[in-house]
Amino acid sequence: MSTINAIVTDAPKGGVKYTKIDMPEPEKYEAKLKPVYIGICGTDRGEVAGALSFTYNPEGENFLVLGHEALLQVLDVSDNNYIKRGDFVVPLVRRPGKCVNCRIGRQDNCSIGDPDKHEAGITGLHGFMRDVIYDDIQNLVKVNDPDLGKIAVLTEPLKNVMKAFEVFDVVSKRSIFQNDDSTFIGKKMVVIGSGSEAFLYSFVGKDRGFDVTMVNRHDETENKMKMMDDFGVGFSNYLKDMPDKIDLLVDTSGDPSTIFKFVKKVNNNGVVILFGTNGKAPGYPVNGEDIDYIVERNITIAGSVDAAKIHYVQALDSLSNWYHRHPQTIKDIITYEAKPEETNIFFQKPKGEIKTVIKWP
Amino acid sequence: MSTINAIVTDAPKGGVKYTKIDMPEPEKYEAKLKPVYIGICGTDRGEVAGALSFTYNPEGENFLVLGHEALLQVLDVSDNNYIKRGDFVVPLVRRPGKCVNCRIGRQDNCSIGDPDKHEAGITGLHGFMRDVIYDDIQNLVKVNDPDLGKIAVLTEPLKNVMKAFEVFDVVSKRSIFQNDDSTFIGKKMVVIGSGSEAFLYSFVGKDRGFDVTMVNRHDETENKMKMMDDFGVGFSNYLKDMPDKIDLLVDTSGDPSTIFKFVKKVNNNGVVILFGTNGKAPGYPVNGEDIDYIVERNITIAGSVDAAKIHYVQALDSLSNWYHRHPQTIKDIITYEAKPEETNIFFQKPKGEIKTVIKWP
Amino acid sequence: MSTINAIVTDAPKGGVKYTKIDMPEPEKYEAKLKPVYIGICGTDRGEVAGALSFTYNPEGENFLVLGHEALLQVLDVSDNNYIKRGDFVVPLVRRPGKCVNCRIGRQDNCSIGDPDKHEAGITGLHGFMRDVIYDDIQNLVKVNDPDLGKIAVLTEPLKNVMKAFEVFDVVSKRSIFQNDDSTFIGKKMVVIGSGSEAFLYSFVGKDRGFDVTMVNRHDETENKMKMMDDFGVGFSNYLKDMPDKIDLLVDTSGDPSTIFKFVKKVNNNGVVILFGTNGKAPGYPVNGEDIDYIVERNITIAGSVDAAKIHYVQALDSLSNWYHRHPQTIKDIITYEAKPEETNIFFQKPKGEIKTVIKWP
Amino acid sequence: MSTINAIVTDAPKGGVKYTKIDMPEPEKYEAKLKPVYIGICGTDRGEVAGALSFTYNPEGENFLVLGHEALLQVLDVSDNNYIKRGDFVVPLVRRPGKCVNCRIGRQDNCSIGDPDKHEAGITGLHGFMRDVIYDDIQNLVKVNDPDLGKIAVLTEPLKNVMKAFEVFDVVSKRSIFQNDDSTFIGKKMVVIGSGSEAFLYSFVGKDRGFDVTMVNRHDETENKMKMMDDFGVGFSNYLKDMPDKIDLLVDTSGDPSTIFKFVKKVNNNGVVILFGTNGKAPGYPVNGEDIDYIVERNITIAGSVDAAKIHYVQALDSLSNWYHRHPQTIKDIITYEAKPEETNIFFQKPKGEIKTVIKWP
Repeated sequence: MSTINAIVTDAPKGGVKYTKIDMPEPEKYEAKLKPVYIGICGTDRGEVAGALSFTYNPEGENFLVLGHEALLQVLDVSDNNYIKRGDFVVPLVRRPGKCVNCRIGRQDNCSIGDPDKHEAGITGLHGFMRDVIYDDIQNLVKVNDPDLGKIAVLTEPLKNVMKAFEVFDVVSKRSIFQNDDSTFIGKKMVVIGSGSEAFLYSFVGKDRGFDVTMVNRHDETENKMKMMDDFGVGFSNYLKDMPDKIDLLVDTSGDPSTIFKFVKKVNNNGVVILFGTNGKAPGYPVNGEDIDYIVERNITIAGSVDAAKIHYVQALDSLSNWYHRHPQTIKDIITYEAKPEETNIFFQKPKGEIKTVIKWP
Repeated sequence: MSTINAIVTDAPKGGVKYTKIDMPEPEKYEAKLKPVYIGICGTDRGEVAGALSFTYNPEGENFLVLGHEALLQVLDVSDNNYIKRGDFVVPLVRRPGKCVNCRIGRQDNCSIGDPDKHEAGITGLHGFMRDVIYDDIQNLVKVNDPDLGKIAVLTEPLKNVMKAFEVFDVVSKRSIFQNDDSTFIGKKMVVIGSGSEAFLYSFVGKDRGFDVTMVNRHDETENKMKMMDDFGVGFSNYLKDMPDKIDLLVDTSGDPSTIFKFVKKVNNNGVVILFGTNGKAPGYPVNGEDIDYIVERNITIAGSVDAAKIHYVQALDSLSNWYHRHPQTIKDIITYEAKPEETNIFFQKPKGEIKTVIKWP
Repeated sequence: MSTINAIVTDAPKGGVKYTKIDMPEPEKYEAKLKPVYIGICGTDRGEVAGALSFTYNPEGENFLVLGHEALLQVLDVSDNNYIKRGDFVVPLVRRPGKCVNCRIGRQDNCSIGDPDKHEAGITGLHGFMRDVIYDDIQNLVKVNDPDLGKIAVLTEPLKNVMKAFEVFDVVSKRSIFQNDDSTFIGKKMVVIGSGSEAFLYSFVGKDRGFDVTMVNRHDETENKMKMMDDFGVGFSNYLKDMPDKIDLLVDTSGDPSTIFKFVKKVNNNGVVILFGTNGKAPGYPVNGEDIDYIVERNITIAGSVDAAKIHYVQALDSLSNWYHRHPQTIKDIITYEAKPEETNIFFQKPKGEIKTVIKWP
Repeated sequence: MSTINAIVTDAPKGGVKYTKIDMPEPEKYEAKLKPVYIGICGTDRGEVAGALSFTYNPEGENFLVLGHEALLQVLDVSDNNYIKRGDFVVPLVRRPGKCVNCRIGRQDNCSIGDPDKHEAGITGLHGFMRDVIYDDIQNLVKVNDPDLGKIAVLTEPLKNVMKAFEVFDVVSKRSIFQNDDSTFIGKKMVVIGSGSEAFLYSFVGKDRGFDVTMVNRHDETENKMKMMDDFGVGFSNYLKDMPDKIDLLVDTSGDPSTIFKFVKKVNNNGVVILFGTNGKAPGYPVNGEDIDYIVERNITIAGSVDAAKIHYVQALDSLSNWYHRHPQTIKDIITYEAKPEETNIFFQKPKGEIKTVIKWP
């Protein structure tokens, strides 16, 4: 047993403390790690606010270590041909159960959900905001690009985008989605929202060849506009200028009223990815004409959550590519580096936040 | 020009008449045909009621011949190695435009919609309720099974089901949908509705290996219960007994309130096929928790309309298989044979209707 | 321990005896079964001839019970909602290992092969030619159609065809394989061989909409020609009349010289399924032009072996459909019913053999 | 009519001249372009040697302008929102016919072949080794990355690799190809050959997560070894050290003897991409055991030729990513820049050639 520093909550009640905890030291382990950077997102804030009823502490414990968007460094590791001491790695958040999808490494598609699978820092497993972490090598994804540095902390949010595009690739095969020249040139992708996930969706959309527009119900800051511009991504305040003829719609808001307004702007054979969640969003009256619109146009609406290890690998690769081609914009996604003791960041977004991260001491 | 009998409406205003019309006789044609049986469905009734604003007469004409669920007989045909005089055929309803999907025979997935594609008896093309029809061979699908008889008139409604299962096959590939023994044994399919399309969906679902339940908000007649039983399909009055743990949900109602109640009973990785349309159905307040449910469970919702020629071929094959294994039940789907002059069937469903057809004299 | 009758070999040495063996009676079991009909095929004959070096006895035993194409009847079964005493069932041949494909019920695609997976009657597991069999319910596929009778013994060979068409479905997606009307009308499938597997491939090909021709290097018997004709399948003695413009080529011969002659008759985007095996077939000089032919035409050649439980289910469904539409031809596939003591059938094909089966007493 | 410089051959007879030719100036055109760099490959050399019987001059002409691996610059262009004067573009080589694949921009999968489709500089269409080129905008792919420079001339050979991986993606779906953690970590890809296409295949393989080894029947130069090393690609002289346990085998040699030796080292569910062609390669005796090997292991062998416009787009994107992460290695692929008058490069490879290009004056 050792005493270490950690940021903890009590799931699902909430609250947050940077405090000392006692953690057992395993006799045998594959890898011993320490955090370097850990991002925080709406889920962390929801947990601290006590707003996420599905979260729970590890079995037999009365607290939950927070943190799932992690970049770790290897302190010690058993003999293997993948990672070595000193390497930077990103740990998997969701850990498999025994369902048919979990057993092939696709716990992101768990057929059962809890308690078949667990998520570090969220449901029944401690997260990564603690001085020391023990884990199996198979749960770690190596950062190959030595230039990447702290940018690698964006792997976890980006992996969700990679999985969502995998879903798009599958469902869009129901008809010919591409142009008659086989490309996506001019195909319109609209991303609802302008937070960090919206940026990541937009950048991947550009890599995929889409004409991408981010939308929100207000104008955006000069800083964000510049970042979008660097990647060739457009922006629209949809209260002033509502996009239409959308081929791929991605929602990061979780707000039904916004979603369904945009669904009625989707083209025949269009695809809608539902990614954002906001359990408290009020109802929007979907009527017979809305259903009719979806049916007559062969529209597909796909919920997408989490991602598999391969998407972490893909995310790291895209981050490297982006970093080498647009270094400043990628760095600008991380808008604030907090110290662990600044637990107020769980309650209040730092001004101009795109992504806030904690730099672990 | 010849004068023939036809059942016509004036789209989109509505109305119905069994009347004489003047139709040009083409100098050259590939096939000359006459109707044998023609089914009627909600679309025909919607047109007659003037409720379908998207319908329109052929260009330059002030009427539209009704009828798209047709079984025709070949009166005369140019030299070819597919059909001959006397053959029974089913004509395609939707005719291609120039979009990328239309040009490969997938006008059911038309990327543009009207006016790129047209639908016989619905949008800009005369239907089949007329003494004589001229068409190209490529628009005709041969009835191969000589035993099938009038059952072949069910090809058109059944082809929609075949296409919807093609959509299911594509979108369900986003995860492992099947059991860990590779089968669908015990996978639950629920079909909302108990009309003719609901029966056809249920029968195909059984062929695909699903455990199938039809649902409606009332008990069903003894006759329908017997037909379901013959195919091993269950039934539930969902006001009394709400099914849950659904893997594949098919809606034939078009009613958002029913659809979204059932969506919240769908399993992880579940698929929802939206097929029914009812433009007048009132709004149902879809809220943040509903969206969250879809996202967290990787649920896919797919609108599906119309079908391609291959689905007509598949439909005829299934009808033959069903006819030889369950002759009485298949015959019982056709609950009433009307004469053309009985135009009241467009206003009022004959008692106990599953499918009403017109026997052309 | 009980003494029962069985037909055994000593793998891989060969030989065959109908003899008494001692088999342990398990204290607990899910299902107790007896054979009804068991087919024999080239594999059984290869084992008896000692020609299959990959076969082996169960661990610690000095004999191997033969028989993998089985139709069994349930003598006793533990409580379950799938099968009951008296039901007819077909047992799975291949039993899963721990590889990523095996663990999702796709041991037909075992990533490792022996000793990860085993095959009853072939590699390390006793087959079904014995008075009593104990098995788990998950390894049994129920015969649902009460009319099917002994025809169900064809499930095992047919399941291989179903899997091969699944492979075709996947690999043919690399381009548009179908006609520009979305159908397979006129698409040419050629099946090399005219034994039982060739018949089953041809019949499935017809169901899939292909224009099917079986070929062999001699004329065929009147009986076989009549059976083909009943299903609309053509035949060609390819020494006299070599087919060309082939879209789907299926080989059941395992003979490289025949295969590669036909490969050069395959159309652009064509698919070749390699199914037959004949380890002793002499070499055929494949040269640079042959490779060039495959490359320039985007041809896909896919080996396909075994099948998953879902293919057994599909096979049973097709057998029912065929039986009700072509009863005599389906019955005629079984050309001889032997008694267990007629072990000479393992050495010598009964005259006019398509499929020889043993009727277990 | 204007007189311009061009490098021409007389297909299929062969020969090569840098000479003046008369070319008509179209009254109307979408884009007027000039070459900047043009690569040469085995096809160009085969044409000049008169070894490619399938090549032919444009209809009514007695010569064929060579050159299909082109980087062009826009001299003049009609109003559009894709390219403007001064942009660098890569032109499509293959131009569509009317087949079902051509009509959706997939002339790389032409169902018919010549004369349905044509290839610039190869079959019936003039290539790009001439002072002035007129073309339609839809046949041009813009170079978006201003840093890329002459590296963009590698787009054409790389696009073939992108298409081959699309084929891999499709055919490998017939089973679970990936590891049980969903990744390709440790999956072994072997590329036969060490020329420019072999390098490009290897680099894409690395991007896809494979453990990649290039092989040849001799040791490789220090220069090539360094380039491989920079991308983490291994090399093996297979006469000394034959790789085995191959998951993805790519052939760039067209030599049956090498191909089939390596096929027998492919794992269960492995994929073989046949890409290289060498019509003069001698025969290799493929025997029954070779066929058996492919069947029993569910191996897929796929010919792959040419690519679609989307693959040009993907190729340009990968070139940019590689250029920014491995600038020197990417530059080192171009081993020699010739002047147009150096027509000896069509007969004799410059020493140490990976890719030779002509810099157009």
